Amino acid sequence: MPLTDPDRLFPVDPRQRDLARSLYDSVADLPIISPHGHCDPRWFAENERFPNPAELFVIPDHYVFRMLVSQGVPLADLGIARNDDGAVETDPRAIWRRFAERYHLFRGTPSAMWLEHSFEHVLGLDEVPSGDNADALYDVIDEKLGQDAFRPRALFETFNIELLATTEGALDDLRWHQGIADSGWAGRVVTTYRPDAVVDPEFEGFADNVAAFGALTGEDTATWVGYLAAHRQRRAFFKTHGATATDHGHPTAHTENLSRSEAEALFGTIMSGAFTAHDAERFRGQMLTEMGRMSLDDGLTLQIHAGSRRNHSADVFAQFGRDKGFDIPGRTDYVAALKPLLDAVGMEPDLTIILFTLDETVYARELAPLAGAYPALKLGPPWWFHDSFEGIKRFREQTTETAGFYNTAGFNDDTRAFCSIPARHDVSRRSDSAYLSTLVTTGRLREADAFEVAQDLAYGLAKSAYNID
Amino acid sequence: MPLTDPDRLFPVDPRQRDLARSLYDSVADLPIISPHGHCDPRWFAENERFPNPAELFVIPDHYVFRMLVSQGVPLADLGIARNDDGAVETDPRAIWRRFAERYHLFRGTPSAMWLEHSFEHVLGLDEVPSGDNADALYDVIDEKLGQDAFRPRALFETFNIELLATTEGALDDLRWHQGIADSGWAGRVVTTYRPDAVVDPEFEGFADNVAAFGALTGEDTATWVGYLAAHRQRRAFFKTHGATATDHGHPTAHTENLSRSEAEALFGTIMSGAFTAHDAERFRGQMLTEMGRMSLDDGLTLQIHAGSRRNHSADVFAQFGRDKGFDIPGRTDYVAALKPLLDAVGMEPDLTIILFTLDETVYARELAPLAGAYPALKLGPPWWFHDSFEGIKRFREQTTETAGFYNTAGFNDDTRAFCSIPARHDVSRRSDSAYLSTLVTTGRLREADAFEVAQDLAYGLAKSAYNID
Amino acid sequence: MPLTDPDRLFPVDPRQRDLARSLYDSVADLPIISPHGHCDPRWFAENERFPNPAELFVIPDHYVFRMLVSQGVPLADLGIARNDDGAVETDPRAIWRRFAERYHLFRGTPSAMWLEHSFEHVLGLDEVPSGDNADALYDVIDEKLGQDAFRPRALFETFNIELLATTEGALDDLRWHQGIADSGWAGRVVTTYRPDAVVDPEFEGFADNVAAFGALTGEDTATWVGYLAAHRQRRAFFKTHGATATDHGHPTAHTENLSRSEAEALFGTIMSGAFTAHDAERFRGQMLTEMGRMSLDDGLTLQIHAGSRRNHSADVFAQFGRDKGFDIPGRTDYVAALKPLLDAVGMEPDLTIILFTLDETVYARELAPLAGAYPALKLGPPWWFHDSFEGIKRFREQTTETAGFYNTAGFNDDTRAFCSIPARHDVSRRSDSAYLSTLVTTGRLREADAFEVAQDLAYGLAKSAYNID
Repeated sequence: MPLTDPDRLFPVDPRQRDLARSLYDSVADLPIISPHGHCDPRWFAENERFPNPAELFVIPDHYVFRMLVSQGVPLADLGIARNDDGAVETDPRAIWRRFAERYHLFRGTPSAMWLEHSFEHVLGLDEVPSGDNADALYDVIDEKLGQDAFRPRALFETFNIELLATTEGALDDLRWHQGIADSGWAGRVVTTYRPDAVVDPEFEGFADNVAAFGALTGEDTATWVGYLAAHRQRRAFFKTHGATATDHGHPTAHTENLSRSEAEALFGTIMSGAFTAHDAERFRGQMLTEMGRMSLDDGLTLQIHAGSRRNHSADVFAQFGRDKGFDIPGRTDYVAALKPLLDAVGMEPDLTIILFTLDETVYARELAPLAGAYPALKLGPPWWFHDSFEGIKRFREQTTETAGFYNTAGFNDDTRAFCSIPARHDVSRRSDSAYLSTLVTTGRLREADAFEVAQDLAYGLAKSAYNID
Repeated sequence: MPLTDPDRLFPVDPRQRDLARSLYDSVADLPIISPHGHCDPRWFAENERFPNPAELFVIPDHYVFRMLVSQGVPLADLGIARNDDGAVETDPRAIWRRFAERYHLFRGTPSAMWLEHSFEHVLGLDEVPSGDNADALYDVIDEKLGQDAFRPRALFETFNIELLATTEGALDDLRWHQGIADSGWAGRVVTTYRPDAVVDPEFEGFADNVAAFGALTGEDTATWVGYLAAHRQRRAFFKTHGATATDHGHPTAHTENLSRSEAEALFGTIMSGAFTAHDAERFRGQMLTEMGRMSLDDGLTLQIHAGSRRNHSADVFAQFGRDKGFDIPGRTDYVAALKPLLDAVGMEPDLTIILFTLDETVYARELAPLAGAYPALKLGPPWWFHDSFEGIKRFREQTTETAGFYNTAGFNDDTRAFCSIPARHDVSRRSDSAYLSTLVTTGRLREADAFEVAQDLAYGLAKSAYNID
Repeated sequence: MPLTDPDRLFPVDPRQRDLARSLYDSVADLPIISPHGHCDPRWFAENERFPNPAELFVIPDHYVFRMLVSQGVPLADLGIARNDDGAVETDPRAIWRRFAERYHLFRGTPSAMWLEHSFEHVLGLDEVPSGDNADALYDVIDEKLGQDAFRPRALFETFNIELLATTEGALDDLRWHQGIADSGWAGRVVTTYRPDAVVDPEFEGFADNVAAFGALTGEDTATWVGYLAAHRQRRAFFKTHGATATDHGHPTAHTENLSRSEAEALFGTIMSGAFTAHDAERFRGQMLTEMGRMSLDDGLTLQIHAGSRRNHSADVFAQFGRDKGFDIPGRTDYVAALKPLLDAVGMEPDLTIILFTLDETVYARELAPLAGAYPALKLGPPWWFHDSFEGIKRFREQTTETAGFYNTAGFNDDTRAFCSIPARHDVSRRSDSAYLSTLVTTGRLREADAFEVAQDLAYGLAKSAYNID
């Protein structure tokens, strides 16, 4: 029996389902544009085999391991690397077994849908993991991963990826991107400029990072002018490795539009180390506006990912560090927060600022009204916990009526789990087809227009929002 | 091919659809009660032809022009009047062409549904605008507008409007309402008392407005007693022009219930000009409670439209002024904000206060629980960005279970776009029929009751909430 | 004609409906676990007849009387007991008549569904109340209530209740639970430790309550150590009457994790009476963490019911006191509020903390991400205004994708209206069956898994979350 229903996510009514299926069929084979994500470029530079099933499906996927943790499995038992010297499980088979035994926890979740898409369509499995088959499945998968057809570049091609953007910090030397370029491989893997570590005064090691930023660029990053020049230089360098966008992960969407002397004074306070949380907030906010201005010059799309309360558990952060499934969304204001940025650059028709949120309450109330007015704004797709059938449905239902389709930016998979890329784009294409079929069958959209929109949502809008040619 | 689907907005399941259609058919021909909106009474006083397609469909409709602006069309290119001396497009045909060429932007929006309803049912068109047909459609529409059947009063009658309420400021002399009365025309166009310009200390020209308020009424509006007396006098004057309600557009729902001496002192601070934003907020809040008390005396329904962050773009406001599509909703509290007003007059069974919100998160959490308890409160229909199929659906799903149907106030079209009035009431009647059919087919409402409720939602509740006889 | 549709709340599509019905049929006859509610244990200790229809269906049910009040019926006319010496209706038949005459107000509400379930399935009625049949129905119901089969214990058995938890204050002597135990009746009615009156410094009579708490336990509750010891002692006493949980009704979810000396100092401030609202908030917050620590020792599940703004109307509170339908939900933060508690005990796999909210905006944004990470957290079912078909649907749609099913805690009826218990569990089982059938027919859950999940949601999860054996 196949693991996945060929009609999954389509409406149940036969007429709607037929139309949804037709819409989906018209976009199912389009190449994947993945303009924002967290894959490791080293995979494609080196093209080594993926080491084992646990390192492909459990250890890098915080959606998966956080669910196991929530039901009492210690992070260390899942092979998550520690900051301290506590013991960590090193046997990948034991990790896989803990996952397989608790597979029922994923019932009804997008993780199950992504995993089963990979199990069936990438690996050719015909049963889901359980305590009974854990070892047998481990062996089957591990054997596959040893085949050339399952190396990173081969999978990239199998997945029909036209462009994959990774995300690197401002201090990254982009050696793996250089390695991909040097290799002559034709796969298009580009970087994205994510300068949080040199923009956020509360980032671990911020002062050292800014010093290294100066050393790397030859600019005097102890001065405001030099610091900005260093950003300009790195943006240009990232562009040579294909970057078409920058990305900014901030706790809030707060922006500032300070005068040059105010900004300079604030930078001085930050660099002195004697800054308050409020100063840090203002500095991050000012930098979004500076980045918007630089984007006017160099054409990079500006992405704002706001609203995650990172590292919620003090113990987990102390023992395991960042990105361990304990980042929790919080209430996030956009309407007041973005006003300074929008007063500065929001009316620019040639600038693209893509907004992401973890707070769905702002879709209809703030984001759609803003994107439906300001030329520079586009809405990014549902992010993180909301990148799912219900999440996509809520996004469309709550943004389309005010912002339309053409103020949105297509789909992002935003993943570290490589095999989930085709699964996630498939969910997006199916969910949008379902939504469009509902509009058509309830007289809100003409059928011919729905086919055009389906193409745009699956492919065209991502290319235009991210300036991909 | 007709532009609109006769079964639009009905559920897809055949049994549900049949019932929804029957419910809709039972209310489709009821007269329109439009108890709150922004049509220009001059249209009906003078009964001149509408000048051209752009001035009917694009220039006055901020839903339409904001979408074009969001995709890079300058406001000035759409004929929007400027405050400064910059150039503005004056050729209505050029404006219409810009609109027609970008008509695909409206896919999936309520604007498309309203426009197409007008195009088909008012103007008899059989194609939607595009770059190809822009000039031809312009000519067809323009020719129609020259016919007597398309003058304002004729359309009013064609639209089957039983009552249309406009909205005028406290300083308005109501000359156009007087003109309608003098003309002998039988159409019922009434005014609404909207005193924001003399109530909101942050309104442009507030001090001058209050002085003019005194001159107009012969009251000493420099004193708290005289200021209140001036309101009472104007309310009475507005009642002679048919007003059954007042309306208050405030940034928040904040209310106060100050003692007489506190209120008098606050009024003094306001009139001194040396007030803070907090003082202004408190004054607006106190005035809602004063208006509630006056309503106890004169029977006018009190409408509160809270939560719009007006004039979000500093540049657009400076160049074009108010009401230019850059009003953005923000998070709005009601539960604490309304307590002073409700402690003062909330338990009065003969008072009607109608609450509107742009923050849908308060429907189930705050507004339905409040309206399901306080005798004076009723819930206004979904407002502005939420006046759409999905918006109405969310409103019903999130308020009915706690407040029922009989604590709601029927439908408002709240529009400046005259031709959209029948379209908007049609959407409301269809959406409610769809919702009611769902309740019946899932065993949550008896079918006979659903037909009664449909009548109440389409007609009866608006009349009772607004004291219309 | 039956009052209730046997397929109520199931999806309309035939394939979905068949599956939903099969799922429902598989759980419809499971015993009721009611681990949180507000029934009066005296009913079961004394087993007297319910006095009359008004005292069974109107007077104790704030959902019912608040709706009547919202449409202008004074509370006193409904027999609600007063704090002051104003007159109150004492004729139960007159109260019932006021209810029956206004029965149309409940159209589309869960109250109607609960009432009609009771009318049909408990009382065998075949018409709904109206002005015409009010007296006749009153007589029929009153006669039934006089029969032995309608006494509390008989109904408990008819309802197939396996366990019913009541809620008692820390000062309660649990005499009625003792009475039940002494009676030899086999029905399992257990208590729950709800210490708000001795934990919330803003509770009426707090200082006296704490003094009584000392007298009752023999501990010196004027000291922090003695105060905590008194809690420990009472928890142990409640356990001897079957308690498996504590419950805490707080205005917010604020928690603290103070050092012992800080906590001691704060307790001193509170006991001095000279505390601020902020001190009170911190003290309540610290006590949640203390309760969490005690739960680690004694195994009681910790329930947090946060976010009700109690006694919103000053007049209603002054005249009628607490719990009179004027408690209004407000915006409630969890992500920052719970961090101190979670840093203290959130990673404990053997602790269960059940979170309830009146603010649905936190389901997807805060609660599901928290419960999908912290081992100690489980999500309680939709509460109060959200305990309805649409409320349950929103809860599942907004929590399942991130937290799954196994981080939820089954259903609570949380009612004072005894006859509504089977009706509420029935709504829950039907709503969950509808949701599960949707997941299956859209390819998001395997059918066999859906049947397992249905059992868990209707029965198993409540037992495990509340440590019921």
